[in-house]
Amino acid sequence: MAIRIFITGGTFDKEYNELNGELYFKDTHMQELLSLGRSRLTVQIKTLMMIDSLEMTPEHRNYIADECRQCEEDKIVITHGTDTMAETARVLAQQVSGKTIVLTGAMIPIKFGSSDGLFNLGSALAFVQSLPPGVYVAMNGRYFIWDNVRKNRQTGIFEELKPVSTHTG
Amino acid sequence: MAIRIFITGGTFDKEYNELNGELYFKDTHMQELLSLGRSRLTVQIKTLMMIDSLEMTPEHRNYIADECRQCEEDKIVITHGTDTMAETARVLAQQVSGKTIVLTGAMIPIKFGSSDGLFNLGSALAFVQSLPPGVYVAMNGRYFIWDNVRKNRQTGIFEELKPVSTHTG
Amino acid sequence: MAIRIFITGGTFDKEYNELNGELYFKDTHMQELLSLGRSRLTVQIKTLMMIDSLEMTPEHRNYIADECRQCEEDKIVITHGTDTMAETARVLAQQVSGKTIVLTGAMIPIKFGSSDGLFNLGSALAFVQSLPPGVYVAMNGRYFIWDNVRKNRQTGIFEELKPVSTHTG
Amino acid sequence: MAIRIFITGGTFDKEYNELNGELYFKDTHMQELLSLGRSRLTVQIKTLMMIDSLEMTPEHRNYIADECRQCEEDKIVITHGTDTMAETARVLAQQVSGKTIVLTGAMIPIKFGSSDGLFNLGSALAFVQSLPPGVYVAMNGRYFIWDNVRKNRQTGIFEELKPVSTHTG
Repeated sequence: MAIRIFITGGTFDKEYNELNGELYFKDTHMQELLSLGRSRLTVQIKTLMMIDSLEMTPEHRNYIADECRQCEEDKIVITHGTDTMAETARVLAQQVSGKTIVLTGAMIPIKFGSSDGLFNLGSALAFVQSLPPGVYVAMNGRYFIWDNVRKNRQTGIFEELKPVSTHTG
Repeated sequence: MAIRIFITGGTFDKEYNELNGELYFKDTHMQELLSLGRSRLTVQIKTLMMIDSLEMTPEHRNYIADECRQCEEDKIVITHGTDTMAETARVLAQQVSGKTIVLTGAMIPIKFGSSDGLFNLGSALAFVQSLPPGVYVAMNGRYFIWDNVRKNRQTGIFEELKPVSTHTG
Repeated sequence: MAIRIFITGGTFDKEYNELNGELYFKDTHMQELLSLGRSRLTVQIKTLMMIDSLEMTPEHRNYIADECRQCEEDKIVITHGTDTMAETARVLAQQVSGKTIVLTGAMIPIKFGSSDGLFNLGSALAFVQSLPPGVYVAMNGRYFIWDNVRKNRQTGIFEELKPVSTHTG
Repeated sequence: MAIRIFITGGTFDKEYNELNGELYFKDTHMQELLSLGRSRLTVQIKTLMMIDSLEMTPEHRNYIADECRQCEEDKIVITHGTDTMAETARVLAQQVSGKTIVLTGAMIPIKFGSSDGLFNLGSALAFVQSLPPGVYVAMNGRYFIWDNVRKNRQTGIFEELKPVSTHTG
């Protein structure tokens, strides 16, 4: 059961440029995190782009959807900036079917001491293995269906748009 | 959907005693890791014991099983030493039913720079939300059913006892 | 032999704002670093300002010089942005005498996993205890006299303006 | 002005063996720390041994002294276990003259998140450049002359045997 991992950028992969003090993208830290987590999953990693999610255009999202449709794996994790993660989830839900797609990211860059990235990645890889086909956002230890999630810009926390009727158990 | 978290010790929570150079237990780092992961899950944390899993006796395991039965949550994550994690999983499977129980731990203590603990915790919390009732081990990014898992002592990696027929999709 | 520590900001104390993705100042991490280094030095810490050194004006520098003259300690460490550290050193050399003053900083914020800040602080505190009165910059494991140092903007490395005649042992 | 760095082991270079849960020595982390500190010092690193300082014999200490005498550098930093650091300092003071020798180490292994090693190294490298010939211990941000230092085993802190009369500048 191979898992496809697509990299699109976002806070997750930002680094500090010590010459000018700005944050920028170099390479993804995905392989490094998988080693840190002693992951033994079979994964295929592909970097689609390395951008802030606020700069993501409809073309970028169509490209991600294309790649999701065309890859042979039906379990896909996408690292993505948090600001427009819900928007990309919506586009993927419209264009891709029959696959479990989980978007995740980080509030703090991986390279910082206090990043949530490793936790989120562990969580996203687990959800993609265990949730039925559909498009999800995995953040804050939780998962959200694509049509019921937003990032609260004031708090930085992901939340439902409307309450979920919970008959869990 | 509250999640119960039971702490039993293991490498996960080991610390370095700088006066005598030995590893020991002080308090659990669970709350610290949940904050780091910006978790917004509703959890109830209870420390049952703080021991190496090689020191775990049948009495310890019965106590853990009792607590799993008696707690009101039906989703339970247990942090546990890796050496006998599979053994405890077996006892829980015999004594607890109707609940999703996920055991996890770490190969490297949380307090070390290169711990897998945060990744494993993210993964265990995701699996406990999405897997059907049963007892599981979550390590190396994967999950294993209680009756088909062992830790390979040579490699430190968790693996199936027998191959799984995979008609995944 | 108390040591005075003045905080002025710079990369050293920058943090990541997870709501807007920008770097900013909150509090100094000096106390945290001294604890990490298990320092048993008697120090007096005072935050004079929290700014980028590119924003530092003649007024700011005069204020730092005033504080250096007026404090009762004659060993002073100043954390400072690297870009204009040499400029502030020059102003201090003109206005303060009879004290050992060591400026230091960091190329990477303390809060990042790979910061040079702890190393630089250890080095600055050692130099201030052992060098004769004068104004120095301590970076890259070395010390530089105020009138023979610049930061090379291309490489991010501190270097002498002119070669030092070394009749060192 | 090249600096000689001798590695002898100690907590500084201990690693966690994730297969058996024990601390052990593999390679020194010296090069890694110098990179982290963006050090531009000219150094010659040589590993003399990798042992706990409690296991250090008179033969080991004589060997270290030989190497100190024979190396061409007259500025030497030695990483060493903290328990018998003062004892080795005494042997070196008896056998080596005309060189500045600074012993340092760590209370917590480098590979742990909260090590004092980087701070101590920055401090030792600074002291070796600025102190007159003699043998010193650099710990807790301070330096101690070889004949007036001990590690307090109860507190883990280095201290003078007898008060120093301070007519410091």
